[in-house]
Amino acid sequence: MNIIKQIDALRENINQAKKQNKTIVFIPTMGFLHQGHLSMAELARRQDETRSKFYIVMSIFVNPLQFGPNEDYDKYPRDLSRDAELAQRAGVDIIFAPTVHEMYPEGTSLTTVSVAEVTEGLCGAGRPGHFQGVTTVVSKLFNIVQPDIAYFGQKDYQQAITIKKMVQDLNFPIEIIVAPTVREQDGLAMSSRNSYLSPEERRQAPVLYRSLQEGAALIKQGETRPEIIREKIVQRIRNESTGQIEYVEIRNADNLATTSIIDSNVVIALAVRLGSTRLIDNIVVEV
Amino acid sequence: MNIIKQIDALRENINQAKKQNKTIVFIPTMGFLHQGHLSMAELARRQDETRSKFYIVMSIFVNPLQFGPNEDYDKYPRDLSRDAELAQRAGVDIIFAPTVHEMYPEGTSLTTVSVAEVTEGLCGAGRPGHFQGVTTVVSKLFNIVQPDIAYFGQKDYQQAITIKKMVQDLNFPIEIIVAPTVREQDGLAMSSRNSYLSPEERRQAPVLYRSLQEGAALIKQGETRPEIIREKIVQRIRNESTGQIEYVEIRNADNLATTSIIDSNVVIALAVRLGSTRLIDNIVVEV
Repeated sequence: MNIIKQIDALRENINQAKKQNKTIVFIPTMGFLHQGHLSMAELARRQDETRSKFYIVMSIFVNPLQFGPNEDYDKYPRDLSRDAELAQRAGVDIIFAPTVHEMYPEGTSLTTVSVAEVTEGLCGAGRPGHFQGVTTVVSKLFNIVQPDIAYFGQKDYQQAITIKKMVQDLNFPIEIIVAPTVREQDGLAMSSRNSYLSPEERRQAPVLYRSLQEGAALIKQGETRPEIIREKIVQRIRNESTGQIEYVEIRNADNLATTSIIDSNVVIALAVRLGSTRLIDNIVVEV
Repeated sequence: MNIIKQIDALRENINQAKKQNKTIVFIPTMGFLHQGHLSMAELARRQDETRSKFYIVMSIFVNPLQFGPNEDYDKYPRDLSRDAELAQRAGVDIIFAPTVHEMYPEGTSLTTVSVAEVTEGLCGAGRPGHFQGVTTVVSKLFNIVQPDIAYFGQKDYQQAITIKKMVQDLNFPIEIIVAPTVREQDGLAMSSRNSYLSPEERRQAPVLYRSLQEGAALIKQGETRPEIIREKIVQRIRNESTGQIEYVEIRNADNLATTSIIDSNVVIALAVRLGSTRLIDNIVVEV
């Protein structure tokens, strides 16, 4: 498996695969790969019954545009040689790991792609500019890779809905697949940022998913009032951790609309700061 | 030549052409075709030496997103059957003429594409939201047609520079060709909006190009002060017409930067209202 750093070289490489009638599958990541990322390559490989039709392209690029000025862009973990080894084992065909200069030769992009409504609230409230950075870089990557299928992880639920909306609105000819969140044994959603946690924070972190599961169970039992669910989750996180809650929200699972009564599929999403580490998680509840 | 109104049908049609190794050439228009539009198909046909390699797709879509609330969206001239005849004669292979609902099934697009800096000033000042409407619809059309080459007319100079910037920033794998402005015998730049002019306004309209030519001649003679050029043009338009000047500006021809001294290629661009009709024109001067 090769690592390609230049856009032109990647295009040439992918064109060769297209000439062989391969289906181009794209998995954009910021690297420091964990099983959440790798599961997407594995999922794709399982979809590819002949084990020869899919050409799996994974990008590894820590995109400065989606980090705020006080966020963790500089300290975001990076380990390309380890990533390459893991990706190869998971069945990735090619890694695209461009430099910032390759992606933004002028330092930034005068052109931006923005999605309204679904990016408002939730992570959009605490991270102004974040989703515009995501949709802009994903548009660039889509135009570079020109995939038939692209995978996004469910852990970044608002991101996945935003990308789906962007693909629909801008007519990208790409099928978006949202892959299930992969969790540690104790339920903590896998995230590159988990590496920031102190042992004590790591011990507390599973309360996020436990509280989401409790919320989901209450809905399954017939509770329709979002504020009751929300209060239970908030109380549990406060009781069982030192986490600072950024948000706990119940939204329509398809379009992230706020809801005053739970009468269709919803997502319960939260962001909690443990020490200086911001963790997010969510659970979808079918009603 | 067929007229296709559905996105899916167009994609299928173009995929057939791609399978025959055709080069997909795209000419986006708002219809009510004149020789300015048709010259782009003719240019492409001349580039296509074998007369069989290029597959020329022309879109005809009056895009509501790029019209302001007080602009001429409703009265913008439309004549699809006449357009189809002219396009066929010019060598167009297929017309894409979607409905507004086909392009914006939800009435609008939550996703927008914006280009900063080059859209500021000139037409961007008088038409807030216009260029965002253009870049959004062109992104959609690019993703629908997936052309190898796209033509834009030089008459809409700021639009052409904006599209070039967008293509570069978002890595669209498309070559952009800017086709020369086609003019009436008396110099008036061809425009669908010329049909709005009264006989008296039509008589006055050539002063726009005459004044641009005078400005260009002064620069060629060594004049380097933009304000002198500008003043000459403004005076001429005021003396020889009843036109209301929206702007007359001299900008860097490549990036539309303002300039206090003319020491590289520039574009002289103007917008003038004759009665209720807004006309634009420009001239590039190589220094």
